[in-house]
Amino acid sequence: MAASRLARGFPILVCVLAVSVAWVAWCGPPAAPPAPAPASPGPKAARVLVAYHSRRGNTEKMAQGVLDGVRRVPGAIGILKKVGDVTKEDLEQADAIILGSPTYYANIPGAMKTVIDDWAWKMKVDFTDKVGGAFSTGGGQTGGKEHVVTSLLLYMLSNRMLVAGPFYEDLDKGDIWGEPGSSAMTGPLDFGVSQQELDGALRLGERIARLTRKLKAPEGKE
Amino acid sequence: MAASRLARGFPILVCVLAVSVAWVAWCGPPAAPPAPAPASPGPKAARVLVAYHSRRGNTEKMAQGVLDGVRRVPGAIGILKKVGDVTKEDLEQADAIILGSPTYYANIPGAMKTVIDDWAWKMKVDFTDKVGGAFSTGGGQTGGKEHVVTSLLLYMLSNRMLVAGPFYEDLDKGDIWGEPGSSAMTGPLDFGVSQQELDGALRLGERIARLTRKLKAPEGKE
Amino acid sequence: MAASRLARGFPILVCVLAVSVAWVAWCGPPAAPPAPAPASPGPKAARVLVAYHSRRGNTEKMAQGVLDGVRRVPGAIGILKKVGDVTKEDLEQADAIILGSPTYYANIPGAMKTVIDDWAWKMKVDFTDKVGGAFSTGGGQTGGKEHVVTSLLLYMLSNRMLVAGPFYEDLDKGDIWGEPGSSAMTGPLDFGVSQQELDGALRLGERIARLTRKLKAPEGKE
Amino acid sequence: MAASRLARGFPILVCVLAVSVAWVAWCGPPAAPPAPAPASPGPKAARVLVAYHSRRGNTEKMAQGVLDGVRRVPGAIGILKKVGDVTKEDLEQADAIILGSPTYYANIPGAMKTVIDDWAWKMKVDFTDKVGGAFSTGGGQTGGKEHVVTSLLLYMLSNRMLVAGPFYEDLDKGDIWGEPGSSAMTGPLDFGVSQQELDGALRLGERIARLTRKLKAPEGKE
Repeated sequence: MAASRLARGFPILVCVLAVSVAWVAWCGPPAAPPAPAPASPGPKAARVLVAYHSRRGNTEKMAQGVLDGVRRVPGAIGILKKVGDVTKEDLEQADAIILGSPTYYANIPGAMKTVIDDWAWKMKVDFTDKVGGAFSTGGGQTGGKEHVVTSLLLYMLSNRMLVAGPFYEDLDKGDIWGEPGSSAMTGPLDFGVSQQELDGALRLGERIARLTRKLKAPEGKE
Repeated sequence: MAASRLARGFPILVCVLAVSVAWVAWCGPPAAPPAPAPASPGPKAARVLVAYHSRRGNTEKMAQGVLDGVRRVPGAIGILKKVGDVTKEDLEQADAIILGSPTYYANIPGAMKTVIDDWAWKMKVDFTDKVGGAFSTGGGQTGGKEHVVTSLLLYMLSNRMLVAGPFYEDLDKGDIWGEPGSSAMTGPLDFGVSQQELDGALRLGERIARLTRKLKAPEGKE
Repeated sequence: MAASRLARGFPILVCVLAVSVAWVAWCGPPAAPPAPAPASPGPKAARVLVAYHSRRGNTEKMAQGVLDGVRRVPGAIGILKKVGDVTKEDLEQADAIILGSPTYYANIPGAMKTVIDDWAWKMKVDFTDKVGGAFSTGGGQTGGKEHVVTSLLLYMLSNRMLVAGPFYEDLDKGDIWGEPGSSAMTGPLDFGVSQQELDGALRLGERIARLTRKLKAPEGKE
Repeated sequence: MAASRLARGFPILVCVLAVSVAWVAWCGPPAAPPAPAPASPGPKAARVLVAYHSRRGNTEKMAQGVLDGVRRVPGAIGILKKVGDVTKEDLEQADAIILGSPTYYANIPGAMKTVIDDWAWKMKVDFTDKVGGAFSTGGGQTGGKEHVVTSLLLYMLSNRMLVAGPFYEDLDKGDIWGEPGSSAMTGPLDFGVSQQELDGALRLGERIARLTRKLKAPEGKE
């Protein structure tokens, strides 16, 4: 019994160590990126779908960061797709879905909203109890990037998912904090996706993958 | 000079009287609806475009209520159109735009967002300093009707419009209050658009028309 | 091994049955309320704190409904407190926190926001990975009740919680849906908390308790 | 008659010129700041109250930027106050109110919300038809700065104000755009208020002052 509990605690220990290593590597001088921890996932692995809409590549770059975050979590499988390429099977097999969107007039672009409307409405996907997270890109300092994140989260909550955001910590000061999602300002004053914004994406992927693992644990002990 | 000021105050007086009459008629027992005050508008009339998206008729019914509210304001012209039928000319000629939308997963449907995205993005309509208001319909008590209203207002603010909501007053208690927009709960527990919800639509139309008149006044004295 | 898996599945089975029974009882003709399932919780029970701010009793009534929902879930303990009476120990011991608030000018009242600001800022409570849900009451059809729910959820996400909303189903039509939270319109056109609004509160409590149990399962098998 | 219309158009001309000059000065190389255009306002001047809450000085710095923007508009008077120092008379005399707030857990701090709740609730200030705008400061890339801006705007709309945001243009590309409000990221990755963020504050003040002048014009011709 004690051994079993220990065994069950082991992946968490590994995860904590991996995060620590990742943190040090990430915050240090631009060194070699830390090796991900693929940890050949068994059939009970947590599947995390990262789906995004991107026209100019910024949201795609953030999506790649989210995927990298997912892959830091042992026992988590990350799948990266454009929303238009996502199938009903992709959605049904996913234990978690992280959505990324650019900002059109302070909200999700119509083209992307149409696709995700159809997931629930026409494809009749059942999202109940899947875990969700959201990220966005957008121009301007107050141009609606956050409203896009909130909108994606409300979409998920309306589809019976549970949602969370990235986990931040400042090891020097001993501070921890959270945010509802991740985003990058991509213009007009600060173009592209910065290293710090990519860090927010990575943290989002990592957090969602970790929570999904936690929720899956009762099913599969691996 | 004094006469000129009096003359300029006259439409406001008429408007106040019309509102009072409307209020009494509205809140009283189901009597004959108050006669609107068309007041043949001159070339300087305030043009208010009411544009909506509707699949099952609820949002259309609310839109009709908004239009009725616009028409209570002397010197205001109301135009009612489905968003898909709105032309660039309609948008450019409008002094005010009131948008109505159903709620799909706590937000504007993709089909409608695509249309209004294109107004700004592809049609390149300049909305600067136009007045805006918003209304929505949706199922559920907390299903996102308000998020749709907020989203429509943020769309307008991002397009450099100024926005307002309906004006309410309780003459018995001497209370006045406002709301960010108007909405109707259309299911699953309370189907259709109630008289009270329609009253919210009417107040929205009236308020936006009145403010638009106020902003137009410097141009045309009529 | 198979027996152990079966044993672990048993509480879920009980829960599903309880929900079904509850649903039938709830939706049927005004019959005797279903008996709650107290299920003397072991030391690993899911503790759900329902904390609210109420001046006129409406939010308190909704809070009681949420508590009733929590108590339908075997293995869940519900604690009901006014936010001002909540101690640091209450917060730290809670596996889930459901917050309820009236609406003051489309947002959380300053008096309540000050209290919950202090929980994180001055009391330094660590909310990481606790489950959260939100409900509100407010006057008007579009007066900000939803913005309060969204604001409470964003507070929780900023404090590293994961959040969810009530689960709805229409057994006749075979429909299921969700909402970001629960709310009641308490004036000026529809005073008090209706049975349907109370049902939303109950569903919120039940959903959060169920998810919390699911997340706690790996720790305690009972 | 024609002369009168010309006379009334004159302030607008002056305003447009001042804005153009300001823009060139602002966007050019770090030169001497452009001289404001005080234009000794007559009794019919547009009074713009800039009220803010600040603990560490960032929101105060933004408030100063907003005030500078107000003062670029001929015929506008800017008044700068902490929310706690604002009197009922300040609020009643103001034609426009621009509110600034830091971000506490993705929303207005309780201390500030309590003050502005009391303006409407206890002081019974009538905000009807006053013009409003909002700005915020906050840590994090997606930490709720925008939700604070939206919340302040919803507060205003609930109090029957009409609201707008800053006006942006890129003279090189011929682009114009808007945002719902202005904000500054003040940590943890990017401390303080940058020149670009201050530019957003200035544009907000200028836009609100200009719109307020436009609405006041029918009353006072100066």
